[in-house]
Amino acid sequence: MKQVKIGIIGFGTVGAGVAAYLLENKTVIAKRIDMQLTLIGISDINIVTERDVNVPKELLTTDTNELIEKSDLIVELIGGITVAKDYILKALKQGKPIVTANKALLAEHGEELFAAAENSRANIYYEASVAGGIPIIKSLREGLAGNRIEKICGILNGTCNYILTKMEQDKTEFNTVLKKARELGYAEADPSFDIDGIDTAHKAVILASLAYGEWFRMKPIYIEGIRNISVIDIKFAEELEYKVKLLGIIKKSKDNVQIRVHPALIPSQKLMADIGGVNNGVFVKGIPVGEVLFCGRGAGMEATSSAVIADIIDVALNLKFSSHGRVPAFRTGKQFKNLIKMEDITTRYYIRVQVKDQLGVFSRISTILGEEKISISSLLQKEKHSTESVPIVIITHETQEKNISTAVKRIETLDVVIGKVNIIRIEDF
Amino acid sequence: MKQVKIGIIGFGTVGAGVAAYLLENKTVIAKRIDMQLTLIGISDINIVTERDVNVPKELLTTDTNELIEKSDLIVELIGGITVAKDYILKALKQGKPIVTANKALLAEHGEELFAAAENSRANIYYEASVAGGIPIIKSLREGLAGNRIEKICGILNGTCNYILTKMEQDKTEFNTVLKKARELGYAEADPSFDIDGIDTAHKAVILASLAYGEWFRMKPIYIEGIRNISVIDIKFAEELEYKVKLLGIIKKSKDNVQIRVHPALIPSQKLMADIGGVNNGVFVKGIPVGEVLFCGRGAGMEATSSAVIADIIDVALNLKFSSHGRVPAFRTGKQFKNLIKMEDITTRYYIRVQVKDQLGVFSRISTILGEEKISISSLLQKEKHSTESVPIVIITHETQEKNISTAVKRIETLDVVIGKVNIIRIEDF
Repeated sequence: MKQVKIGIIGFGTVGAGVAAYLLENKTVIAKRIDMQLTLIGISDINIVTERDVNVPKELLTTDTNELIEKSDLIVELIGGITVAKDYILKALKQGKPIVTANKALLAEHGEELFAAAENSRANIYYEASVAGGIPIIKSLREGLAGNRIEKICGILNGTCNYILTKMEQDKTEFNTVLKKARELGYAEADPSFDIDGIDTAHKAVILASLAYGEWFRMKPIYIEGIRNISVIDIKFAEELEYKVKLLGIIKKSKDNVQIRVHPALIPSQKLMADIGGVNNGVFVKGIPVGEVLFCGRGAGMEATSSAVIADIIDVALNLKFSSHGRVPAFRTGKQFKNLIKMEDITTRYYIRVQVKDQLGVFSRISTILGEEKISISSLLQKEKHSTESVPIVIITHETQEKNISTAVKRIETLDVVIGKVNIIRIEDF
Repeated sequence: MKQVKIGIIGFGTVGAGVAAYLLENKTVIAKRIDMQLTLIGISDINIVTERDVNVPKELLTTDTNELIEKSDLIVELIGGITVAKDYILKALKQGKPIVTANKALLAEHGEELFAAAENSRANIYYEASVAGGIPIIKSLREGLAGNRIEKICGILNGTCNYILTKMEQDKTEFNTVLKKARELGYAEADPSFDIDGIDTAHKAVILASLAYGEWFRMKPIYIEGIRNISVIDIKFAEELEYKVKLLGIIKKSKDNVQIRVHPALIPSQKLMADIGGVNNGVFVKGIPVGEVLFCGRGAGMEATSSAVIADIIDVALNLKFSSHGRVPAFRTGKQFKNLIKMEDITTRYYIRVQVKDQLGVFSRISTILGEEKISISSLLQKEKHSTESVPIVIITHETQEKNISTAVKRIETLDVVIGKVNIIRIEDF
């Protein structure tokens, strides 16, 4: 039985998990692929910290360079975009294929890395970089290979989805829920990466690049996190039969593509609206497949290990059959003309304005909307909750982002309007 | 650019659709795989009937044998288990790989066909045989390759799901909805294959075989269709916060496996309960991945074409890289001891008994349940709807199927009980 020597760089939770499951499922995997996957080492600068899973001590090493030399296949699980990149490039130069979960690195430096992979004829596999255990990369690249992708919409960050779900269930404000999420280990000590949408954007960039055959970078992507979502918005959304989710949205309109990350109102009766807690969901619309939805755990040691091991198996089979590059890790072949600017997107909007409870306020707002060619689809004006202000909630028909921006600026200057106007885009599916 | 010559056997709706999409997406596919997929012919005994999609007339032929000779890759889309099997075996003998959507054929003769494929070293690909456009075969075989599969639960038949969804929405009885489904083309003229669960069982057999490394046959599978579901059951289910779905259930308990097809009550708050209409859904629980759910259109020209074309691409890449059998079409390596008999399964049950409205009726029923070691979890007894009978609905705790069978038989002999007792198994997820 052919043997493949595997080296893991990074003895964190995921590294330890992958090691443990590789060892545990060794027989099953060997039966399935008629190959022996032999873990020969795990490297890290710190190999002393105890992990939750059992990994034989003799596998641990601090010498990453030596591990790369000795391995047939490198699993990069240190994360970050500096050291990880160096190790990957070094391994590729030696013609060694890579499996990585590093979405930040791919989103920021995908172009360079895949070019290096192309030169070395050793592939980079990255199933674990998006949506954890959900095999979305393989599905897009192979399972839906014959499709033209019209749209991808993803709940791609478990931390944000947990926070929004909790806010909705308990009607508790963002900061309180965030604190709880931190205590439970669902949010990092510095959670800005997740809650400001950066992590979702990294994943959206990877999905978009895969779907449309050209590496997008982070720069042209519109990114808005969930800090501005209040319980009052979630309540209004519920009343209007919507739920609030942080989405990565990739959409084709005619020959152009838009990529954006922001909270969105999703109709409650859609399956996507029911994906709660730390789960991820990816909705794909393609021709001819129609609509397909994938859901599952988007992070965590178990789900990530599943994706990493699937990639290891794929790479091992390529080594066995000398079929490197059989399915290119990333498919070039640009399938769009331009990236649509955020100001030019068209969608429906939820607008909440806090106003003084005076006569004629709504007519002043609706005049501005009319002048900016924004037409109102529905309206909620509640009796006042406080002496200070009352909320007016407006749902618009389809309109352009730039019209909304102008209207919002104008509305905010009205003397009857208190504070900022909150807008949330609507994603109708 | 390397070229692969494709021959399609079967000029039905799907055959015509695959041909049309292959031609339409030719450039996209060529860019993605750096290969030319050339459709050289479509054969059928009837090539005169007009199809909804446009296929060049010169591609049509009645000479299937000649088409097989000339093609590099055969797409079998005639269905049925006689002629289709002969053509597949003939093509395999010539070393030509097969793509098929024929679930009946695989479920009935999978063992023989995959043995022939093994001998010829030409693979059989069958993504389209289960759950239409959802890439579930690829996901199980590759995307979740490193997992031990604990459970698969599938809504695998669009016709049944449409009927049950309609019954639930409109509170209309089975026969009326079936008539409507026929008119809309969602049900065949002879719908027994779908509504009696045979089609779901074919798909369950394929999924189970893939998950547990041995070809199961149809014979040991318990199959129950949806003919006995009444609106009254759907209403009670709703009241108890469940929905009724026809499920293919594949489950591991200890080292043994159970495979069964029957209607089941699913808790309303689960995503699976929300998969409505003609859609399919497949829930997979694996270690380490946890729970993953896939949903999408389970049938129809478009979804099926998507799956068939993905398989064609996979096979074409194998031809290009001479990597036949890189991922074996079916993975041997039995991962269970025994198939659990239906009478030995353990689950919770919904039991509806129609009784005469007399004193002490419930105590007679509950005595029988107690004697058969069945414990009651909840109970619904409504005021009488008619002078003839009142329904009693019992939800049990976990119990063995054989205990329920005995209890039901005993309850049906009671003079206060009218007609048959209706039981529906509960799937808690």
